[in-house]
Amino acid sequence: MSHILVINPNSSASVTRSMEACLDPVIEATDHLIECVELAKSPPGIETDAHVEQVIPNILEAVAASNADAFVLSCFSDPGIASVRQLVDRPVLGIAESAYLAALGLGTRFGIVSLGQSSIDRHLRYLQTLKLDGRLAGDRSINKTVVELMATDVVETVSRTARLLRDEDGADVVILGCAGLGSYRQALQQNLGIPVIDPVQAGVSLACSQLDLAYGTARRLGTAH
Amino acid sequence: MSHILVINPNSSASVTRSMEACLDPVIEATDHLIECVELAKSPPGIETDAHVEQVIPNILEAVAASNADAFVLSCFSDPGIASVRQLVDRPVLGIAESAYLAALGLGTRFGIVSLGQSSIDRHLRYLQTLKLDGRLAGDRSINKTVVELMATDVVETVSRTARLLRDEDGADVVILGCAGLGSYRQALQQNLGIPVIDPVQAGVSLACSQLDLAYGTARRLGTAH
Amino acid sequence: MSHILVINPNSSASVTRSMEACLDPVIEATDHLIECVELAKSPPGIETDAHVEQVIPNILEAVAASNADAFVLSCFSDPGIASVRQLVDRPVLGIAESAYLAALGLGTRFGIVSLGQSSIDRHLRYLQTLKLDGRLAGDRSINKTVVELMATDVVETVSRTARLLRDEDGADVVILGCAGLGSYRQALQQNLGIPVIDPVQAGVSLACSQLDLAYGTARRLGTAH
Amino acid sequence: MSHILVINPNSSASVTRSMEACLDPVIEATDHLIECVELAKSPPGIETDAHVEQVIPNILEAVAASNADAFVLSCFSDPGIASVRQLVDRPVLGIAESAYLAALGLGTRFGIVSLGQSSIDRHLRYLQTLKLDGRLAGDRSINKTVVELMATDVVETVSRTARLLRDEDGADVVILGCAGLGSYRQALQQNLGIPVIDPVQAGVSLACSQLDLAYGTARRLGTAH
Amino acid sequence: MSHILVINPNSSASVTRSMEACLDPVIEATDHLIECVELAKSPPGIETDAHVEQVIPNILEAVAASNADAFVLSCFSDPGIASVRQLVDRPVLGIAESAYLAALGLGTRFGIVSLGQSSIDRHLRYLQTLKLDGRLAGDRSINKTVVELMATDVVETVSRTARLLRDEDGADVVILGCAGLGSYRQALQQNLGIPVIDPVQAGVSLACSQLDLAYGTARRLGTAH
Amino acid sequence: MSHILVINPNSSASVTRSMEACLDPVIEATDHLIECVELAKSPPGIETDAHVEQVIPNILEAVAASNADAFVLSCFSDPGIASVRQLVDRPVLGIAESAYLAALGLGTRFGIVSLGQSSIDRHLRYLQTLKLDGRLAGDRSINKTVVELMATDVVETVSRTARLLRDEDGADVVILGCAGLGSYRQALQQNLGIPVIDPVQAGVSLACSQLDLAYGTARRLGTAH
Repeated sequence: MSHILVINPNSSASVTRSMEACLDPVIEATDHLIECVELAKSPPGIETDAHVEQVIPNILEAVAASNADAFVLSCFSDPGIASVRQLVDRPVLGIAESAYLAALGLGTRFGIVSLGQSSIDRHLRYLQTLKLDGRLAGDRSINKTVVELMATDVVETVSRTARLLRDEDGADVVILGCAGLGSYRQALQQNLGIPVIDPVQAGVSLACSQLDLAYGTARRLGTAH
Repeated sequence: MSHILVINPNSSASVTRSMEACLDPVIEATDHLIECVELAKSPPGIETDAHVEQVIPNILEAVAASNADAFVLSCFSDPGIASVRQLVDRPVLGIAESAYLAALGLGTRFGIVSLGQSSIDRHLRYLQTLKLDGRLAGDRSINKTVVELMATDVVETVSRTARLLRDEDGADVVILGCAGLGSYRQALQQNLGIPVIDPVQAGVSLACSQLDLAYGTARRLGTAH
Repeated sequence: MSHILVINPNSSASVTRSMEACLDPVIEATDHLIECVELAKSPPGIETDAHVEQVIPNILEAVAASNADAFVLSCFSDPGIASVRQLVDRPVLGIAESAYLAALGLGTRFGIVSLGQSSIDRHLRYLQTLKLDGRLAGDRSINKTVVELMATDVVETVSRTARLLRDEDGADVVILGCAGLGSYRQALQQNLGIPVIDPVQAGVSLACSQLDLAYGTARRLGTAH
Repeated sequence: MSHILVINPNSSASVTRSMEACLDPVIEATDHLIECVELAKSPPGIETDAHVEQVIPNILEAVAASNADAFVLSCFSDPGIASVRQLVDRPVLGIAESAYLAALGLGTRFGIVSLGQSSIDRHLRYLQTLKLDGRLAGDRSINKTVVELMATDVVETVSRTARLLRDEDGADVVILGCAGLGSYRQALQQNLGIPVIDPVQAGVSLACSQLDLAYGTARRLGTAH
Repeated sequence: MSHILVINPNSSASVTRSMEACLDPVIEATDHLIECVELAKSPPGIETDAHVEQVIPNILEAVAASNADAFVLSCFSDPGIASVRQLVDRPVLGIAESAYLAALGLGTRFGIVSLGQSSIDRHLRYLQTLKLDGRLAGDRSINKTVVELMATDVVETVSRTARLLRDEDGADVVILGCAGLGSYRQALQQNLGIPVIDPVQAGVSLACSQLDLAYGTARRLGTAH
Repeated sequence: MSHILVINPNSSASVTRSMEACLDPVIEATDHLIECVELAKSPPGIETDAHVEQVIPNILEAVAASNADAFVLSCFSDPGIASVRQLVDRPVLGIAESAYLAALGLGTRFGIVSLGQSSIDRHLRYLQTLKLDGRLAGDRSINKTVVELMATDVVETVSRTARLLRDEDGADVVILGCAGLGSYRQALQQNLGIPVIDPVQAGVSLACSQLDLAYGTARRLGTAH
């Protein structure tokens, strides 16, 4: 049995709780210990590129201090993932990358529901870095802040946006492009009739799989993406 | 608890047994029932494109007759995967596609150890179909038939080939491009110092993950790849 | 003078007759003997990926039994083309691939008129395999079955769809994405003012050209696409 | 019966004669009248980008003065092809583009035998323009001028170079990247065991096919490539 | 202090004057001598591919006759740029290529305001040659001739088109795709709130920079693009 | 006259001095005030991905505190560039991105001389993000630390590596992939006979150009790359 540390890189404990709730099906399916933590020094939400950069030192610090067997960076920007992978030779998963890989296995082209335009730009850059942008059907914004997300029921907006991704953009899989949208997944998937991916679940599930197959003991030649 | 049917599409029971042996770490990590079968009507090995086409009706028949909750096509050519996915609305995994997705999560560029030149051509076509050829470092042949593979210890040849993929082609992950090479994985990974992927393990592990997260209940819009 | 076998891989003799009718301009221009046959064991139409897979053994059987000098697979899915090419060292043409190559020579970006959504997915996968998807302007469905196609005059629907490919998607060549639409070609081309390609004509014409230049005597190194 | 004007854009009548000799198999296979001409105002050979530009006005003049039904620009740089296509609404074929399309139909990846490094650069730019560079296996120079080509037997050099394209670069089709290498084609193909393409044959053959199928009556929307 | 020759390849002196006016901010910022000339033998405007080809010999003649230290080809088609670069070993800048490079440095994806559809086709071919089409957001035509451009105030049309590039196509930089639109740049940029690039300014500015850093003394290995 | 702040993101004043020395030709050519500073809180050199992340907060702090008219991030990893661009609406240049753009204007394919393998991985990821990896000829390491770079004369090693990029990889432009190699540029360029780019010069030169043309007053729609 191994220990997976899921790092919510913002400081909001309520976001951490909501992540844990979404992880139930993964926790049930594995023997690994899954622990979720937030980072007290970080801002309550991560919305801009500057926020992304700002939390990276906090993540590096948390990883360096932990002897967990695998790490999941639980923010859809995979902040500082290359640096963390250079720091430790244990598996380091980003929830965005994990969600993209899960989507590739479930359909032809995926759509992303994003919080805002600045996220969309960041996602495209990252997909280009990973050379996976050829499978992107569309990325559409619901124009909400993280605070609004927590305060109101956005299921209607998310659902309408996901429907556009499916019907206008030709997506046959939808990714919820934010760590805080997981509670809507099941209803959405039922409603849309195509797979809907919660990136936090995708990240932790992939971490379990990498631990089960013991890839983590291998030294990485480079720094991966 | 769900039932995963792993279909070895050739007729060789010894290949099926060798797959089962490699699946131990996945079987230990999951509660799902994993059953491996060969197809009596098929040839003993799949080496040419004609073999690939020939076994597809057998696979379709086996899938149509089964009420398993998920299917893994356990041949590195993912024979007939699009057709099988149109036939049933439960998860259908190909071991090649699964190995590629696993590799994307473990490194920057992957190398493939293949049995022969004809396989290499087929792999490239498939990677292009999936739009993942941009992450391929190299694909090198050991020039062996399936029969030779079963009869002799090819660990030296595989090891030398994998080393070339790492040192000449810049691969930081290696995929064993055949369902029958899994027994060499652990030694090779230790030896090379980078992750080595057995596609059968990758396929079954991804099937578990898709079942755990219940993506399978969703109707696919299209036919996926 | 050589013998070209045009294989209609479904069992509908009326489809074979309609192909023959469209081939008049090619037959007039060449001395090669062009023979069209259907396959009695196949279903009457090929609409799904499962249909595609199902007819491949029938095609392989027909090719193995023939001593024709070249073969044209006359279904817009080019079913089993890689296997057939491995089977014989004579030219094997797929009508989809041939239509794409003809289109590349006639314009900048081509559009496809397809029968249904499942065909569109299959076309895209194939274009990606061929690395020609960069020249695709659009692929639009008329939502008809093969049976409906034969029973009704779809010229209005096809024409409206082709116009959208030209005006909305920027296609300057249009491909009729089905072996049974050839009778509309001439009227459509006149009407649209841009080249319209019947894939059956394209396939047989390219077979003639390959025979005229005697490429067929050359052994293929690999399996081609 | 239509009239195809094959324009050798340099002024060397001996090059024209050599083209005619290579066209025998095409002439035998078609009823169209094939006429080959050189351009008196042009230099005797086309080796640099400046030569390419220099002959374009001569080509435009020759095309404007002719009422041929189709034109083949018989220089492997397809000089001024976009302009010629804007000038007339009859088929205009370039021998490079035609050779590329022929190669796409005969194998997975093609190699080019070129006269010199400056040609290689030009070929790559053109392949990128056509978005076909993804299928290029390699382009290797024999480092000869057109004059040397005419004066000496280069079959050994060409053969050695083609062999490298096949064995080192993985080409399964070879294109002779110059209008004056056609006389070596048959021997080379026999020798190499893979298809070898003479671009002049490919261009005239494609012109015949476009005339046979009457694409030429269609107005082009844009200017094509 | 070096001498930059800006070649307006058409014969219209009024276009030359308008270019000079737009170059004021570059002239103020550099010590290099900037001279603008038109070519008397050319047509008054360059609108078709045939025009482009037609002016190339005139450009080659002008460059061969000049001992300027750098050349700027001031037509958005970069006519004959590869040939000019083979002719002299001093810096040769095309205003289209320069505008693309400037745009890459100012945003994620650029839009182009073009005179007509034929220009759009030409731009795409060139961007593909340069392998920069992955950053193109859109290219929209104002459907004007060069004569209309000079005679009327098109600021409204240009502005409306640029707005569509920004709002519909997602451009965050706009390029004025013609040498004669520079006088609108400043107003447009203010109006749109995103950078607007005049290609003439971009070309001359890049020439200054290449001279300042003395790249021009280096021999080019190939012919560049 | 504007003020350009060149930020050396490490803490080594000797590196800053060496940058200033290399900037002489840019300083001579412009009226803008160019100021170079190091960041006291940073490590003395930036070699790993973790170093890159670590200095970003320091850069953000320095930029926020300055009222310079443009900023140049003078480390070949362009650390935190997206965040800095979100922070201020004045031009922000990265020296890697600037060097890539300069290279695109000087040749067909560029090579990079890098300090170590970890840099090569990072460069490739960034080039993929920018969608410019299609123009990369090769990236080769000299296997030196920044400290070794400052202590010894590496001109022989750099020269040998650059020669391989030119002769083996086909580069016709070479980029010195580190802020501390600029002093070798002139000798190398003379020696190699192709343009050699110092990224610090490229970055500051591009900043001057953007200021001269007043792009900086425009609000960016997104966050750029």
